[in-house]
Amino acid sequence: MSRLTGRDPSLLRRINSTVVLRALRGTTTPSALTLTELVHATELSRPTVEGVVEDLIEAGLVAEAADEPGGTARRGRPARRFRFRAEAGQLLGLEIGPHRVAAVLSDLTGRLTGSLSREVVETAEADARLERIRATVAELLRRTGTARDTLRAVGVGTPGIVEADGTVRLGTALPGWTGLPLGERLRRSFRCPVLVENDANAAVLAEHWKGAARGVDDVVMVLAGLSPGAGSLIGGRLHRGFGGAAGEIGALHLLGREARPERLLSTTDEPLHPLDEAAVAQVFARARGGDDRARRAMDRFLARLVHDVAALVLALDPELLVVGGWASGLDGVLDPLRAELERYCLRPPRVALSRLGETAVATGALRVALDHAESELFTLEETEPAR
Amino acid sequence: MSRLTGRDPSLLRRINSTVVLRALRGTTTPSALTLTELVHATELSRPTVEGVVEDLIEAGLVAEAADEPGGTARRGRPARRFRFRAEAGQLLGLEIGPHRVAAVLSDLTGRLTGSLSREVVETAEADARLERIRATVAELLRRTGTARDTLRAVGVGTPGIVEADGTVRLGTALPGWTGLPLGERLRRSFRCPVLVENDANAAVLAEHWKGAARGVDDVVMVLAGLSPGAGSLIGGRLHRGFGGAAGEIGALHLLGREARPERLLSTTDEPLHPLDEAAVAQVFARARGGDDRARRAMDRFLARLVHDVAALVLALDPELLVVGGWASGLDGVLDPLRAELERYCLRPPRVALSRLGETAVATGALRVALDHAESELFTLEETEPAR
Repeated sequence: MSRLTGRDPSLLRRINSTVVLRALRGTTTPSALTLTELVHATELSRPTVEGVVEDLIEAGLVAEAADEPGGTARRGRPARRFRFRAEAGQLLGLEIGPHRVAAVLSDLTGRLTGSLSREVVETAEADARLERIRATVAELLRRTGTARDTLRAVGVGTPGIVEADGTVRLGTALPGWTGLPLGERLRRSFRCPVLVENDANAAVLAEHWKGAARGVDDVVMVLAGLSPGAGSLIGGRLHRGFGGAAGEIGALHLLGREARPERLLSTTDEPLHPLDEAAVAQVFARARGGDDRARRAMDRFLARLVHDVAALVLALDPELLVVGGWASGLDGVLDPLRAELERYCLRPPRVALSRLGETAVATGALRVALDHAESELFTLEETEPAR
Repeated sequence: MSRLTGRDPSLLRRINSTVVLRALRGTTTPSALTLTELVHATELSRPTVEGVVEDLIEAGLVAEAADEPGGTARRGRPARRFRFRAEAGQLLGLEIGPHRVAAVLSDLTGRLTGSLSREVVETAEADARLERIRATVAELLRRTGTARDTLRAVGVGTPGIVEADGTVRLGTALPGWTGLPLGERLRRSFRCPVLVENDANAAVLAEHWKGAARGVDDVVMVLAGLSPGAGSLIGGRLHRGFGGAAGEIGALHLLGREARPERLLSTTDEPLHPLDEAAVAQVFARARGGDDRARRAMDRFLARLVHDVAALVLALDPELLVVGGWASGLDGVLDPLRAELERYCLRPPRVALSRLGETAVATGALRVALDHAESELFTLEETEPAR
């Protein structure tokens, strides 16, 4: 900013419109305000507020509260009240993972209005997997009576390094994923922006929004699994890295020890199948049941997890570490993890289990869509786009 | 920002003053401008510019170029020119390391005006080390004819986790360093702000300012050594971590392999002394000379360095990795490092050697001081303080 003069009128109109919308959205919950209250809240002139409200009503973003059920009826000299129409648009968050696809739907304030998930076989090719998510979305829209053209943004969380345009640069966890123009493919099904995000990145956004990391701005979230990944918030913002590969710690085990999780967790001489999480769950269950080989396998896996996590924590020094993925189904991961981090880290972070569990990725994808919608509706200054 | 009204007059005066100073500083080099040129450059009114310039002259930050040697003399109707007085204040950057202390001096544009360094024994206690840096500063000020009260800010780079107030929370590389209120101790010698920064953090600022990372905003710098550390810029900003411990990767070697550098680099059964860098240099020299044991020792150390660096790179995904510290004296570190990073990283960064070498830490400390001065002189909005 080098001077305060010379703002153009359309920018001013947009600012005024945003100021009014913000006041109607309220700080915590939407509220219905009279013109006088809006003049007071915005410090704009009454004619300006009147003009802006007219425009917003025309755009479908504001309604007279009196027009709605439960609103004050107009009689005598009416004290018209206006409210933000959170239902003016819908947002969709999608997860496309190795074993399931999921979709969650919300209004413009992020209030959930529906969700649906479906299993998918880990060997499914890209086309089949995309068909599966499309069908899931169609059913969710149908069940909730949502018209597709009311969608204002779609967020997607999926494993791999994702480019800004939604192309998967590298994604070894899903068949046919590397090189897939996922954003472009999905955009054919929607007339609104589609924003694709790495699954661990989506998960950390979700935990920050409504999970274990609420109110914490420096967070590392590890999605434990056969192909582990991590997402980080630094100062409340997602850290994607220069090439979108930040937190792709799956290769760490190649260093020093040639030990992949599927080998560490095997109780025979043969490694597990890299995507067979059912077999993994079995090993954990047997370990809990006292089986010695399974317990040793689990110890090996935990040592590996601690190693990966310690490297991230030493590099980033977060306030909080959230463990999700498989580990959210594991009792007793946190205590050994805490003990080991105390040993290795100069300043160990707090450690917490994911609160959102298997809904984390789709919820984070919804947050991405919501961020996009909010930046369009409520942001005054030009901000970095959501992706 | 929620509205544009109601700015108070003193803030407006400060903004105008900053706008004028910025114009005089120029975008690349300081320039001398007439009042008319200033009115044009700032879009302020002539009376406002005149008032601001008067104030700045009184504060010693602006001078009539005609008053200076080489300026235009006043004759006839004078076209007075004004310039920013870069010499109005001095900035000091200090390094306090295991083996040396160093000081660099600059004017308010960061132009170097002097430097001095002194060796210090690695076993020196904190008091002796502080006395050594004080004496070095005193001699540098004397030699350059700099009055101590012209110093506007002092930056300090030193190993360890440093709190915002300059206290060393944890510093194992220097005797007596943990718990030392370094900022407070140094502030007794100066009447200006003293800002203490971790040495690797200072080094990455320096490489970004005038070294291998110029123009690159996502950088990890590793200071290789017996107690390795790293500093990172993310989007051009220093990433200190939640507790100031980001990049303190010295403990990584405890994970998986109990292998400290002083043991890896030993060619006998006895480890080297943890701070004996001369012995290390000898091992490197012997390795270059073809000594088999030394070469094996160096290979072990390199494998360790690659491991530490890969963990950082996977966590942060920088555009560029700069290697400094010892490694800047090592031929042939970069190629094996590049080859290994290609293997382990999904998106390997560029790798470069430090360009500033052993001046990196003091230069970065100077940058910290300069940032502080610039935020006071040239920044319009309230920004995060330098520390």
